[in-house]
Amino acid sequence: MNPVRVCVVGVGRAGMVHATNFKNNVPRASLAAVVDADLELAEKRAKDLGVDLFFSDLYELLDRAEIDAICITTPTFTHAEIAIAAARAGVHIFCEKPMALTLKETEEMIQAARKAEVILQMGFMRRFDPVFIAAKERLDRGDIGRPMLIRSLTRGPGLPPPWACDIKTSNGMLAEVNSHDFDTIRWLGGSEFVRIYAEANTLKCFDLKEEFPNFYDNAIVTFRLKNGTLGLLDGACPVGYGYDARAEVLGSEGVILIGELQDTAVVSCTKSTGLVASNFPGWRERFREAYIAEARHFVECIIERKEPKVTGEDGKRALEGVLAANKSIQSGVPISLGGS
Amino acid sequence: MNPVRVCVVGVGRAGMVHATNFKNNVPRASLAAVVDADLELAEKRAKDLGVDLFFSDLYELLDRAEIDAICITTPTFTHAEIAIAAARAGVHIFCEKPMALTLKETEEMIQAARKAEVILQMGFMRRFDPVFIAAKERLDRGDIGRPMLIRSLTRGPGLPPPWACDIKTSNGMLAEVNSHDFDTIRWLGGSEFVRIYAEANTLKCFDLKEEFPNFYDNAIVTFRLKNGTLGLLDGACPVGYGYDARAEVLGSEGVILIGELQDTAVVSCTKSTGLVASNFPGWRERFREAYIAEARHFVECIIERKEPKVTGEDGKRALEGVLAANKSIQSGVPISLGGS
Amino acid sequence: MNPVRVCVVGVGRAGMVHATNFKNNVPRASLAAVVDADLELAEKRAKDLGVDLFFSDLYELLDRAEIDAICITTPTFTHAEIAIAAARAGVHIFCEKPMALTLKETEEMIQAARKAEVILQMGFMRRFDPVFIAAKERLDRGDIGRPMLIRSLTRGPGLPPPWACDIKTSNGMLAEVNSHDFDTIRWLGGSEFVRIYAEANTLKCFDLKEEFPNFYDNAIVTFRLKNGTLGLLDGACPVGYGYDARAEVLGSEGVILIGELQDTAVVSCTKSTGLVASNFPGWRERFREAYIAEARHFVECIIERKEPKVTGEDGKRALEGVLAANKSIQSGVPISLGGS
Amino acid sequence: MNPVRVCVVGVGRAGMVHATNFKNNVPRASLAAVVDADLELAEKRAKDLGVDLFFSDLYELLDRAEIDAICITTPTFTHAEIAIAAARAGVHIFCEKPMALTLKETEEMIQAARKAEVILQMGFMRRFDPVFIAAKERLDRGDIGRPMLIRSLTRGPGLPPPWACDIKTSNGMLAEVNSHDFDTIRWLGGSEFVRIYAEANTLKCFDLKEEFPNFYDNAIVTFRLKNGTLGLLDGACPVGYGYDARAEVLGSEGVILIGELQDTAVVSCTKSTGLVASNFPGWRERFREAYIAEARHFVECIIERKEPKVTGEDGKRALEGVLAANKSIQSGVPISLGGS
Repeated sequence: MNPVRVCVVGVGRAGMVHATNFKNNVPRASLAAVVDADLELAEKRAKDLGVDLFFSDLYELLDRAEIDAICITTPTFTHAEIAIAAARAGVHIFCEKPMALTLKETEEMIQAARKAEVILQMGFMRRFDPVFIAAKERLDRGDIGRPMLIRSLTRGPGLPPPWACDIKTSNGMLAEVNSHDFDTIRWLGGSEFVRIYAEANTLKCFDLKEEFPNFYDNAIVTFRLKNGTLGLLDGACPVGYGYDARAEVLGSEGVILIGELQDTAVVSCTKSTGLVASNFPGWRERFREAYIAEARHFVECIIERKEPKVTGEDGKRALEGVLAANKSIQSGVPISLGGS
Repeated sequence: MNPVRVCVVGVGRAGMVHATNFKNNVPRASLAAVVDADLELAEKRAKDLGVDLFFSDLYELLDRAEIDAICITTPTFTHAEIAIAAARAGVHIFCEKPMALTLKETEEMIQAARKAEVILQMGFMRRFDPVFIAAKERLDRGDIGRPMLIRSLTRGPGLPPPWACDIKTSNGMLAEVNSHDFDTIRWLGGSEFVRIYAEANTLKCFDLKEEFPNFYDNAIVTFRLKNGTLGLLDGACPVGYGYDARAEVLGSEGVILIGELQDTAVVSCTKSTGLVASNFPGWRERFREAYIAEARHFVECIIERKEPKVTGEDGKRALEGVLAANKSIQSGVPISLGGS
Repeated sequence: MNPVRVCVVGVGRAGMVHATNFKNNVPRASLAAVVDADLELAEKRAKDLGVDLFFSDLYELLDRAEIDAICITTPTFTHAEIAIAAARAGVHIFCEKPMALTLKETEEMIQAARKAEVILQMGFMRRFDPVFIAAKERLDRGDIGRPMLIRSLTRGPGLPPPWACDIKTSNGMLAEVNSHDFDTIRWLGGSEFVRIYAEANTLKCFDLKEEFPNFYDNAIVTFRLKNGTLGLLDGACPVGYGYDARAEVLGSEGVILIGELQDTAVVSCTKSTGLVASNFPGWRERFREAYIAEARHFVECIIERKEPKVTGEDGKRALEGVLAANKSIQSGVPISLGGS
Repeated sequence: MNPVRVCVVGVGRAGMVHATNFKNNVPRASLAAVVDADLELAEKRAKDLGVDLFFSDLYELLDRAEIDAICITTPTFTHAEIAIAAARAGVHIFCEKPMALTLKETEEMIQAARKAEVILQMGFMRRFDPVFIAAKERLDRGDIGRPMLIRSLTRGPGLPPPWACDIKTSNGMLAEVNSHDFDTIRWLGGSEFVRIYAEANTLKCFDLKEEFPNFYDNAIVTFRLKNGTLGLLDGACPVGYGYDARAEVLGSEGVILIGELQDTAVVSCTKSTGLVASNFPGWRERFREAYIAEARHFVECIIERKEPKVTGEDGKRALEGVLAANKSIQSGVPISLGGS
């Protein structure tokens, strides 16, 4: 069959990771076009990527280009409109996290995809990471019994863009950086959130706090899942030292540790430095293989018409957790959720 | 000068660790006597340890034996009475954690020691552990900037004794197992607790839950310290897989990881097992050196009449945290503390 | 420009790794044909790979198919003939290690490629491995001063094919398994071999020893390089526990450790197993990225007409070392080499 | 019974480690005296250690002091005379490695101890190290089948004293630094040396090479044991970066790795440094527990009149290996040994 023609919408950093993968690393896909609100950037990226078509307007793309799927890597507050328009045009949707700004939006996205019978896959790439997959397999195999307590953390090296510092336009760091952890705790815990409590503070970016009163750069969240499992999340951004994504599952019969700070298996040692190794500078390095695997999976789901491993429902549930945590930070009390 | 004559009160497992150390590993101390409510056990232990004096009654000891110091390793609810009696007799006090059952008791212990001008040292041995010390030195040296977020966990391999399962007689697992983490978070965070929230659940010992309605075997606690630092604690007991004590400090310029699961630096690998290493079976193995170091420090403080590194005040503060966490578990809301 | 059309010659295990990479993971290449002496296998593999052209005869391929390059993954004793024929047909050559059976053959291959002005790249994929590259960068940056002592080891999980057990048809395990280490020691040591001594023994496959009197399954080799650096190699096959490739460079100011047994960064721990991690089952898993990178480099060299990072000269030098080590094993004395 | 009265002969660095241990960490021993050719140093050390008796002359000690055992930590070339005199005086002997300068001396020491029925224990402390012991237990339990190949390395941080740079007065680095590795290979291999080949070079201390023509600061040695096991040793001194002692056993069913560079289980990570841990600065830090354990074992053997785990025979065998390796370095050929 013909390759799946993919258009990447939003060609910032994350967009370029996906665009490069769809072009070079997904055998049954071809990169057909790019879209960016900034037409000059779209043109430049198209040229870099060797792609003929570029647009600043999504609707023009949907009207004029023959594409099978889009990959949404624009700011969060634009996701819903783009996804819904794509669905209506019969185009499959890969959507970066966080899914959208509100639960209502996520619901509309899910309904639009369902109605149009297009694939809607969320970009929780950890589910495609060899390390997380190996851990999940051990867990599912019963190596450590039932999960009792799950920890997941993400810390990012640098500052997010301004729109992501304002909780109103982004739901803040817990959405932009820690969406993955909300998904990981649900995924590994095998159950839904019933209670969430969060503490947050600004301990580094005092300037941003002045500009955005709701801003925080450190947060911790506790979870109670419906099946009784407890969860712990911590997030911080910018931490400077690199990208840090680790998790841990305590089970009734043992424990699983997932991920580590160290990047390549090279260590050197001198008198003046002591033992030195390198860590992951960013998410691109840490999850390079996972980004390829999720792109391949998306294309496979389109070709074989099967449900993706990470659905719109998963995106919605993660957002539900984020919103509850932000509400807890603002109100100072734990927030209960339906849990089913 | 003559060696410091120490009596160990309570010769269960922890008591025997201390008794053996005072006998063999603290050059300037001698083990002079043991006390245990169970006279037969006291006699047996005395014989094993090569000690002539043994008692079932503390007051008999204080009356009849010439001792300089006691080491209290009895159940928590007996600590206050023993410590106060020792202080009145002019005997220095080493007290295992948790310090006592109530804040009132801890205050009385502190006052009694102060009045009698005797040393009162708390058994937070992590402060004497080479691993924790190396981490604290890096932190104090500014290697990672100011602390922003601290994680500390303790998980124990086996079941505590029945009295420690009942919150009324022990303050539960958070006191018996996780007192160390409350101390670690204060110590590394360099500030006092101002808000504590906790979630707990029974996910393994369902029988004990029936017997003791307040029982829990898994807990997570969040902290906000006065200086703004956030804290995270998790505890579980019994976890079966061994003794697990780790911590982590996220600072404004980097991160420090403290402790690891692996015990000796030996790894083997075969086709059927994969890579296999050994972990710490219990606290005795993990903190063997720390127990020796804290005993030596105690004797040094007595001889040199200096204040110990871990005081009654530290014991009281840790208990304050435990009590707040238990209150949060029972009430479902965060608990505020004075923080100073 | 048009993609580089590659034909893989020899579609056993290693051949399929390369074929899959040229097909899926090298953007500027296309897999155009496969050749295998076993026509049925060639047909089957062609079908699996979605390739139209397959041959049992190299000359037929060279006559009839339009290809730009071949990848030689046949048994060692066939490399020279294939490479020379390809060169004469103006076809670029990627050649798996070991380069050939004799130094004479390697020299003829180099001359043929030079005369035809085609690329000749050797398959020492460690030079393309992120771990080895990171180590080489530290070394070149002077992090540990001048190299003084280099260790390199390779141990393989399973038995080689029969032809590789007979030293006459393969130069034995040191050639088939440890060619990489000979290259690594030259590469990291930055100098040529001047003296080689080896010990070998059969300690596991006693049956093979009866069949092939020159067989050995364990070997150690010492090196003296022209610049004075010492080298150590150990090899063993089959070791059963997995694929093991590590190296170490001791420099005048420090040490670099390269590679480790552990595969994914997942560790689990239970009472019955202790700490358990997974190791690399085989070379495909350990060097997956390196195989892609070397294939991309080969195609890049063809397109940009530049010299590859690993040349026929490197292949010849590694073979020179292997031959000297085998001679040392047979004679019981150290063997001197020209060293320049 | 009364404590075993120990005299330490030679109170340099190693002597002080033993003296401190006999004084503080061996419950059934007392440090009774010190001897040093330098009387002033002997007096100073005696004062530091709180010991009344000190001598510059061994015979005076043996005449005048009531002691049960001596610990020999003088330069190698003095060991034999001291040990033999002690044996004749009925005094038990703990002897630091290397045992002596010649095989004849070692034989006389063994005979003297045997005749006098005194304990003669060699200071191969690795046999008392928790890490090496854990590895040996795994090996003996059959976790990895029969040993096929053993690697052992020791690298020291600083320069040895001048007498140890001259092969004539010390047998050089292989004796002074790597005696332990010769013992480890025999111990873990469970067999005797039958062939030894060595390469050595001066790659750092060019000055010392001028002063002592036989000097080398890097060496590699290969071994063939009587049971067929192969061995590999590497040594270097001074390496600057710290003390490095690791070993590895490849067995017929798997592999065991022994020891690692990292010291405490603390890791920190910042943007400017990457991942940083600390390594062992010296042998005192790396083998602190092993030194205590071997001293306790020695005293236990005296009290219980049992044979020590490391005998004079072990000291002799290690020396035999060292001498063969030095001979190989000088002659350029492998050296055969009796092997039984």
